[in-house]
Amino acid sequence: MPPSNVAESKMQKVLDYLRTNQARFIKDLCDYVRFPSVSAQPEHRKDLKACAEWLVKHCKSIGLETRLCATEGNPIVVAKTPRTKGSKRPHFVVYGHYDVQPAEPFDLWKTPPFEPRIEGRSLFARGASDNKGQNLAHLTAVEAYLKTGTELPCDLTFVLEGEEEVGSKSLAGFLKKNKAELLCDAVVISDTGIPSTKLPALTYALRGIAAFEVTVHGPSRDLHSGIFGGSVDNPAMALCQLLAKLRDKNGRITIPGYYDDVAPLSTYERKQMARLPGNDRQYTKFLGVPKLFGERGFTSTEQRTARPTLEINGLTSGYQGEGSKTIVPAWARAKLTLRLVPNQNPSKIVKSTRDYLTKLCPPTVRLEIKSGHGAEPYLVSPTGPQAQAALRALKAAFGREPVLMREGGSIPIVNDFKKQLRADTLLLGLALPDDNAHSPNEKFDLDCFEKGQLMSAHLWQELAR
Amino acid sequence: MPPSNVAESKMQKVLDYLRTNQARFIKDLCDYVRFPSVSAQPEHRKDLKACAEWLVKHCKSIGLETRLCATEGNPIVVAKTPRTKGSKRPHFVVYGHYDVQPAEPFDLWKTPPFEPRIEGRSLFARGASDNKGQNLAHLTAVEAYLKTGTELPCDLTFVLEGEEEVGSKSLAGFLKKNKAELLCDAVVISDTGIPSTKLPALTYALRGIAAFEVTVHGPSRDLHSGIFGGSVDNPAMALCQLLAKLRDKNGRITIPGYYDDVAPLSTYERKQMARLPGNDRQYTKFLGVPKLFGERGFTSTEQRTARPTLEINGLTSGYQGEGSKTIVPAWARAKLTLRLVPNQNPSKIVKSTRDYLTKLCPPTVRLEIKSGHGAEPYLVSPTGPQAQAALRALKAAFGREPVLMREGGSIPIVNDFKKQLRADTLLLGLALPDDNAHSPNEKFDLDCFEKGQLMSAHLWQELAR
Repeated sequence: MPPSNVAESKMQKVLDYLRTNQARFIKDLCDYVRFPSVSAQPEHRKDLKACAEWLVKHCKSIGLETRLCATEGNPIVVAKTPRTKGSKRPHFVVYGHYDVQPAEPFDLWKTPPFEPRIEGRSLFARGASDNKGQNLAHLTAVEAYLKTGTELPCDLTFVLEGEEEVGSKSLAGFLKKNKAELLCDAVVISDTGIPSTKLPALTYALRGIAAFEVTVHGPSRDLHSGIFGGSVDNPAMALCQLLAKLRDKNGRITIPGYYDDVAPLSTYERKQMARLPGNDRQYTKFLGVPKLFGERGFTSTEQRTARPTLEINGLTSGYQGEGSKTIVPAWARAKLTLRLVPNQNPSKIVKSTRDYLTKLCPPTVRLEIKSGHGAEPYLVSPTGPQAQAALRALKAAFGREPVLMREGGSIPIVNDFKKQLRADTLLLGLALPDDNAHSPNEKFDLDCFEKGQLMSAHLWQELAR
Repeated sequence: MPPSNVAESKMQKVLDYLRTNQARFIKDLCDYVRFPSVSAQPEHRKDLKACAEWLVKHCKSIGLETRLCATEGNPIVVAKTPRTKGSKRPHFVVYGHYDVQPAEPFDLWKTPPFEPRIEGRSLFARGASDNKGQNLAHLTAVEAYLKTGTELPCDLTFVLEGEEEVGSKSLAGFLKKNKAELLCDAVVISDTGIPSTKLPALTYALRGIAAFEVTVHGPSRDLHSGIFGGSVDNPAMALCQLLAKLRDKNGRITIPGYYDDVAPLSTYERKQMARLPGNDRQYTKFLGVPKLFGERGFTSTEQRTARPTLEINGLTSGYQGEGSKTIVPAWARAKLTLRLVPNQNPSKIVKSTRDYLTKLCPPTVRLEIKSGHGAEPYLVSPTGPQAQAALRALKAAFGREPVLMREGGSIPIVNDFKKQLRADTLLLGLALPDDNAHSPNEKFDLDCFEKGQLMSAHLWQELAR
């Protein structure tokens, strides 16, 4: 038999193992989601520990070298495939999290959030989709390799943390401390979504972010607008006039140099984006707006994933209660976030935004700018070998042509992996748009669960090619 | 003796009576301010009644025909000089109020607010300046006429209400009901201020007001700014861009036709305003602003009293707490007030403002405009006979050349008098800038008290000329 046939026959055993063990995998997932591992609520601390210990036991039982790493917060489970001494095989890290969002409000759940219920092909439970079902899919795939004695073409290390829903506070430190062990060729995360089981997807880009708080200070206290109004600048008006100048009427940001480093979308990327479902009529209705809005020359999908933005997230000034209070307010404040895209540099953008606001500010008020959190935009080359490998694994598992997606939000840990491990991240999410992540009646699609396992099994072959 | 000498000798008796009875008038004022007649606090209801009854007794004792008129709120004291049957003498109404502001915070008072304390020429007590001392000054003047048997050249009716500090809710109805009895040639109110005892003043104009609440509605709920930002208008930005267009960088309002009906300031008026104390350096420091601001071509005094304005009194949108929340807010709201000057018409301005905002609003958001309270601007011709009579009375009492002032705020009851009694109001305030009205340690200057009595005594002569 030529080598490819040998490989195919080996893979067949893995795939068969996965197909024949679905019932038990679902039972494992049910056990996993029974832990109310709510990281935001201190009273669940012991449930997080119990869940992590269950994971350790499970990982050991499928043949992984597993340990529980204490952190200042919840422990991190590290599980490794058995290593061959002196092997130069590629190394991949699979990241996931065992902590979940709070389940409140409980009364909106049809059945209790930590008592899994299967209805059709949906498994309902808090954490089923985000993220227990998705990381368990990867664990079942590796189980299939190990239990069928099929040699993996690479080394794998699972990093399963318990603080993702509260900001992954311990992760960066953990990566730094365990850098030598975790250096790898790529990180794989299944914690994003796909449009449908008929349209699997690789998320290859994320937007970054830069947050600001802009305060315009006027008089030393709120002034009577009758007695003083007209002879003193109004900080709320000065703020509005400043902010109004940051975006033109077509949604283009007017900060000098703002678009200088924006990587243009290739024809290939735009074609991929055009394959995503939905149309503007449906989208307008979904948003509840009178009319869509956005930068000219781009589709809604492009606008919200591949183009940078400037959003006012909040405004505060003066009197906000019932009726009116006739004052010139002492100050006015806006919360701003800029969503950045590859290859914009957050510190460069922060500087040009500060400079522009400072330049625009009239001498009749005093401007105060506080920079908040920031995150780099993220991009894995959609035509690079790792992305193409991921696409092949998706196609093999789902039997459909996968699509390349960009995500408009930020996933800051991706930058931690890049910084600490110098590795790109492949975002191979398995959630469906109606999975109700973070909402009552969260569910995970059991087809996504199974196809996710197949995708994971194929992925190691494709990545190691 | 020629008639003028007869009048002078009569007046001398009145003035002598006032001079020789100061100690007793101060005692009367002490009695008056001992009532904690706080209209905002229901527990003081009985104190308001007691204060009104004391006033009735006092007015009767000085020879006025007095009655207590019940209202839905606190009673109104009506006290009239004895009428001569068939007399065609002019009739003037003197308005004042016996209710006071709350005294809190008590711990900031040097001595208890309802235990009058005299230090130098200041009488400290809540209500001493606002407004008991000022209306008592008018009562002492009429007492002097009545007790010396000096014929008044006019009929007087005192209307002393107990709800001024809570919006004069019962006054308009009372005026309407008692219209026949109260129709008059002018209303006199001493409830405003003068720059100093060396610069007495007549306030001849007030600004009006029109209040709005402007809400810009966007998506049906707050949206994740990462997932949706860029493809949907931001209501906070849309609001800022709308509001920014209402005022130019020099403080001129850009609502079409906004200045059409503004009565220009005469050279006489501008000269009067220029006599008011203070300079821009002091004023800048007092406000605590980096630099003054206002419509070009006008002094600060003119800007804040004789020119119309548009002020943002408050801004509300999205997230206002610590840190940031990455949303496109569902809506954004601004509270606006326009200060109007003679001869601007509030309903006309309200309409043009609504029209302009509606025209400016982009189709990507929905605009909601709620109109709030409004008040007409007010003007008594500064060169007319009543204003000139008032100036002569001020000069006779204070021995100084009085100044003509405009007030930037609104006194809505002035419009009630105009509407119900068809009479102009002469604003002959006696408060000094440091009287601490509405603040702890309120005081009334006893020189202002005495000179106010003299002014009142002269005023009836001058008005009846």
